[in-house]
Amino acid sequence: MRLKGFQKLTPVEDALQAFFNHLDLQPTPKTIVHISEALNLVLAEDIVARTDVPRFDRAAVDGYAVRAEDTFGATQYKPCIFQFTKENTLAQNQTKRVWTGNPLPKNANAVAMLEDTETTKAKLEVWVPLTPGENVSKRGEDIQKGQTAVPAGTRLKPHHLGLAAALGETHVKVHEKPKVAIIATGNEIVEPGAKLEENQIYDTNRPVLCALCRENGAEPLDLGIAKDNINDITERLRAALEKAELTLTSGGTSVGGADLVPSAVNNLGKPGVIIHGIAMRPAMPTALAVVDKKPVIILSGNPVAAIMGFEVFARPLLARLQGLKQAEPRPVVQAEITRRTVTALGRKNYVRVHVQRKNGRLYAEPISVKGSSMLSTMTRSNGYVIVAEDREGLEKGETVQVYLFDAISE
Amino acid sequence: MRLKGFQKLTPVEDALQAFFNHLDLQPTPKTIVHISEALNLVLAEDIVARTDVPRFDRAAVDGYAVRAEDTFGATQYKPCIFQFTKENTLAQNQTKRVWTGNPLPKNANAVAMLEDTETTKAKLEVWVPLTPGENVSKRGEDIQKGQTAVPAGTRLKPHHLGLAAALGETHVKVHEKPKVAIIATGNEIVEPGAKLEENQIYDTNRPVLCALCRENGAEPLDLGIAKDNINDITERLRAALEKAELTLTSGGTSVGGADLVPSAVNNLGKPGVIIHGIAMRPAMPTALAVVDKKPVIILSGNPVAAIMGFEVFARPLLARLQGLKQAEPRPVVQAEITRRTVTALGRKNYVRVHVQRKNGRLYAEPISVKGSSMLSTMTRSNGYVIVAEDREGLEKGETVQVYLFDAISE
Repeated sequence: MRLKGFQKLTPVEDALQAFFNHLDLQPTPKTIVHISEALNLVLAEDIVARTDVPRFDRAAVDGYAVRAEDTFGATQYKPCIFQFTKENTLAQNQTKRVWTGNPLPKNANAVAMLEDTETTKAKLEVWVPLTPGENVSKRGEDIQKGQTAVPAGTRLKPHHLGLAAALGETHVKVHEKPKVAIIATGNEIVEPGAKLEENQIYDTNRPVLCALCRENGAEPLDLGIAKDNINDITERLRAALEKAELTLTSGGTSVGGADLVPSAVNNLGKPGVIIHGIAMRPAMPTALAVVDKKPVIILSGNPVAAIMGFEVFARPLLARLQGLKQAEPRPVVQAEITRRTVTALGRKNYVRVHVQRKNGRLYAEPISVKGSSMLSTMTRSNGYVIVAEDREGLEKGETVQVYLFDAISE
Repeated sequence: MRLKGFQKLTPVEDALQAFFNHLDLQPTPKTIVHISEALNLVLAEDIVARTDVPRFDRAAVDGYAVRAEDTFGATQYKPCIFQFTKENTLAQNQTKRVWTGNPLPKNANAVAMLEDTETTKAKLEVWVPLTPGENVSKRGEDIQKGQTAVPAGTRLKPHHLGLAAALGETHVKVHEKPKVAIIATGNEIVEPGAKLEENQIYDTNRPVLCALCRENGAEPLDLGIAKDNINDITERLRAALEKAELTLTSGGTSVGGADLVPSAVNNLGKPGVIIHGIAMRPAMPTALAVVDKKPVIILSGNPVAAIMGFEVFARPLLARLQGLKQAEPRPVVQAEITRRTVTALGRKNYVRVHVQRKNGRLYAEPISVKGSSMLSTMTRSNGYVIVAEDREGLEKGETVQVYLFDAISE
């Protein structure tokens, strides 16, 4: 009775391991996109430099290009004297004005900085000796031809796109966004905006899960709300398995009266539900299923439980589908717990906290360990703390690691 | 000579302050979007709860709805006995099966958990006394009617959209994405993919700045590459000022040979360039201008300097244009510097570092303090350290704050 009808609860790590073992996860197909469309997609093939960057030796400062050897022995009392030239080749003791980024004239191998020189009529005095290469960006200094500029498996940030552009690439090969089918279930669930009958509630999980997919580089396919009716659920699941790389459902996961989703999944193919009931809180009733090698995550209908189930099970899977080794780790900060909090022994507890900086120190206020139906416990938090299975809570003053999902309040 | 022709360098904070003082920054107009389109936009009007959430008292656990007073005095040896009913109103000592989330029948005010009960034929035994409200999600527990569920000025995350949906909202009022015009300048700059003449280089700054705008919630308008020609620059700037809330240019900022952008800006309106030359490194030659109350940021042509100039000057401005008080703070971690690094006295130095976790501790390896032309110093970093004007560098073993722009390597 203790476990609401679940035979046993599976620890989070074992559940993830078993899930991945039943899947043969391959990254989504590769596709070529213009760099203007590539932000935050995952690179599917190394970008290998087709040229050196820079392609030529160039001035790293504003100044005068010289042959370094012509400056040897220069001092402020006995400067070396240079003649200006308009040619693109320097002869002995010749110089040419250059601005940062300009290619050096031929034979030049150093740039005298403005403050180390003085110009008198048609002549330049250089007061300090320069070594060959001084104040020069050497050809290939940034990236050399043949080098891997950006490795496959990188989520493309602005600077990666810049480096691709510097190499003359207009397009990059990335993994397609994984498609994720999303189905809400429940007779009591109504589309936001519709008129509510008594005892009905608006569906929150579809908009939340769609947004979480987008945040994680996936493309959500909204397959609507299924009634608590095995045929309706089965038909939507069939469409989901056909169209998407991952299927998420919400609701109908407890071993309760109208819990039809696991049954429907089991009817659709092998092995079906492989884990049902996770030793975590919230999101205990989450089920993990595989149908003909495609993953189905059966999330709780409780919004906070659905979000944490997504965090723990869908994020790593979406990362792998995009060609990443693992989900990008969330930023972690250390903070001091402001209030004693009781958690459930034998479960991995994900305690929502609000982290705030006061006098340079970080404090984490536990928002709620109950209330997995309460979205306001998410909107009032900016991170979570994981409390291990063998602990019964957090002590006031204890230092914890907080995984941030939103910015820290100052 | 020391300052490459700049009369003086302005400290970063003073420059920002002067820039904002010359502007009368108003958030962009409000617009109504469907919640499926609202992720990461900034809310322009409070979402006020039009109903309680939940709208009715509901079961917080799977179990049996009862009147708490009927359980008073119950023990395992002397359980209280309940009769099942199919009515939606409980009489004395009646009970009804409920699943998590179900509305309570009338008169019920508590839910007995499965493990505290036993069913025998048509009767239920409850072994523990319950207090009124026990295991019940009270009406309005999440949000009460009239409460502000999400305040204006919030960047909308999945859970905010979920809360809006829970309240029955299909649409939210957000600020339009600010439009940012982007112009690269320079005769040597060529569109990626085009054939390079000798001494030409591919434009990296437009793709980078477009991507940075997208990352920061703005809509980039790519106005192409201007030649080093005052008419070409002026015409593009005129179009930019007409179409966009913010204009970014790259290149042509040093007090050098072909530095036409500041002149073109000054010709277009008052007050024109207000700051030119910032006491920072990289991005020293950045100029800040205002033309008829519209901001223009004249960024260095060096890619890393352009990125850091965007970070310091464009990010806070884009935040304000979206109705945020300030740019979302980057995640900050403390890490130990692995190698002595020299920085420029009298400048605020933004030292790129690569932060890595080893044996549970964080180490920050300085990537480069020079090389503001080298994008690979960005792609090899995941954060930066700010070294103050009065310091000459970082010591090995020193603990620093790192501002992260990418995930930490494990």
